[in-house]
Amino acid sequence: MVIEGAKTPERLLHVHLLPSLVPSGALADSIAVVMDVLRATTTIVHALAAGCTHVRPMAEIDDARQLADGMRAGRVILAGERGGKKIAGFDRGNSPLEFTPEICQGCTLVLTTTNGTRALIRAAEASRVLVAAFVNFSAVCEQLLADPRPIHILCAGSDGEPSLEDALLAGAFVEYLCDHYELRLNDSARLAWDGFENQGMTLAASLELGRGGQSLLDLGFAADIAAAAAVDQFHIVPELKRDPLRIEIGAAGVVRSRWPK
Amino acid sequence: MVIEGAKTPERLLHVHLLPSLVPSGALADSIAVVMDVLRATTTIVHALAAGCTHVRPMAEIDDARQLADGMRAGRVILAGERGGKKIAGFDRGNSPLEFTPEICQGCTLVLTTTNGTRALIRAAEASRVLVAAFVNFSAVCEQLLADPRPIHILCAGSDGEPSLEDALLAGAFVEYLCDHYELRLNDSARLAWDGFENQGMTLAASLELGRGGQSLLDLGFAADIAAAAAVDQFHIVPELKRDPLRIEIGAAGVVRSRWPK
Repeated sequence: MVIEGAKTPERLLHVHLLPSLVPSGALADSIAVVMDVLRATTTIVHALAAGCTHVRPMAEIDDARQLADGMRAGRVILAGERGGKKIAGFDRGNSPLEFTPEICQGCTLVLTTTNGTRALIRAAEASRVLVAAFVNFSAVCEQLLADPRPIHILCAGSDGEPSLEDALLAGAFVEYLCDHYELRLNDSARLAWDGFENQGMTLAASLELGRGGQSLLDLGFAADIAAAAAVDQFHIVPELKRDPLRIEIGAAGVVRSRWPK
Repeated sequence: MVIEGAKTPERLLHVHLLPSLVPSGALADSIAVVMDVLRATTTIVHALAAGCTHVRPMAEIDDARQLADGMRAGRVILAGERGGKKIAGFDRGNSPLEFTPEICQGCTLVLTTTNGTRALIRAAEASRVLVAAFVNFSAVCEQLLADPRPIHILCAGSDGEPSLEDALLAGAFVEYLCDHYELRLNDSARLAWDGFENQGMTLAASLELGRGGQSLLDLGFAADIAAAAAVDQFHIVPELKRDPLRIEIGAAGVVRSRWPK
């Protein structure tokens, strides 16, 4: 809650509804938050929480396969989707629920997805890159409070179009952070905020409304949508590291829920 | 108002927050509605209402100048902006208020603007292209009721980023049309709708909030923002015609206000 008359620090918070809409050079010296709620970033949080040591995001199927082939058998999971479906010959698809402790413990996850991977690779230009989903919302909020840099939220979108579920999560961060800072928002951040204000309290239903949700329902993945809407199920913040590009747990633990009431 | 249980026809309504986000081929056999609220489409409505016979949208400054040079002196207005400012040597900038009956009557307006022109040219692929602003909202609504084709709303945005004011107008059309049809919305249409629901009733203030509004305030064009928020000031629908590409009054008259209450 902002106390009337109290000075709050100014902070830039820009939302980009697609990776392609990030202006060239904009991410320098900033903290980027990447989201592909249905389903890549939700899946990444699940996999790391279940014991994967790290996730290697790969743009191309052949590169993913080659990387996994060079790793020790039993210590790697080759997973990913195209058109929402598991890739032929891969161990797993892109359902968060497939990544249980039994299969994840001590393994590297090599993951290739249509939209999420592209967003992660675009975000790599930032000083620090956090991986966000509804399932780790409060943990990401606490990292954003602790790190004063400008924030750029990168929504993965769906096949080149903005997606509702990513915008709603982006809007949840705006809603939370506006109580702590005088935010300098871009227009997409204002739209995402309005979306969250109208739909944040009916999250599971809203995730089914969008194109990504509809497509998952058609493919029989209703449980994945419910899983993606499980706010704060986990208290970890996956973070993108370099050389090689990989995602590991960067911080863990939550002081208290930051989910807007 | 939709009566519970009554069948309403299904109709596609997609919003594209930028011309570049329109999927290839999507506009075939559809009706496109182009909006660049601050300021190109607001200005086009003003100019045609003030007596311009037609508007020639030109992408390049030199092409605009050359076209105007070839027309009869006293019968053409060469206008446009770059970075919001009037182009050197041009008769007028891009302020709707500059286009009075005294200067417009019987003239062709040759207009080049940064974002609006790009959106109009992209929209030309549709079967029919309407030009919309808040100032002719109800007149456009009535044309959309009378023409049953799928609807694609093209927001001009601002220098490659989605803009709040265009999204709010797009959302106003969603809000109006959802009382008449079972709409098949894309995710951007849902976001625009949320934006309008939250901000439509404080329109003039919201138009000042966005990046386009802020930039106009900085340049001293506060009156243009107020003018752009004057809902239903005019009852004409400018329409894009071909060979050569030009905008003329396509329909005029309004049965009643369609502005959501």
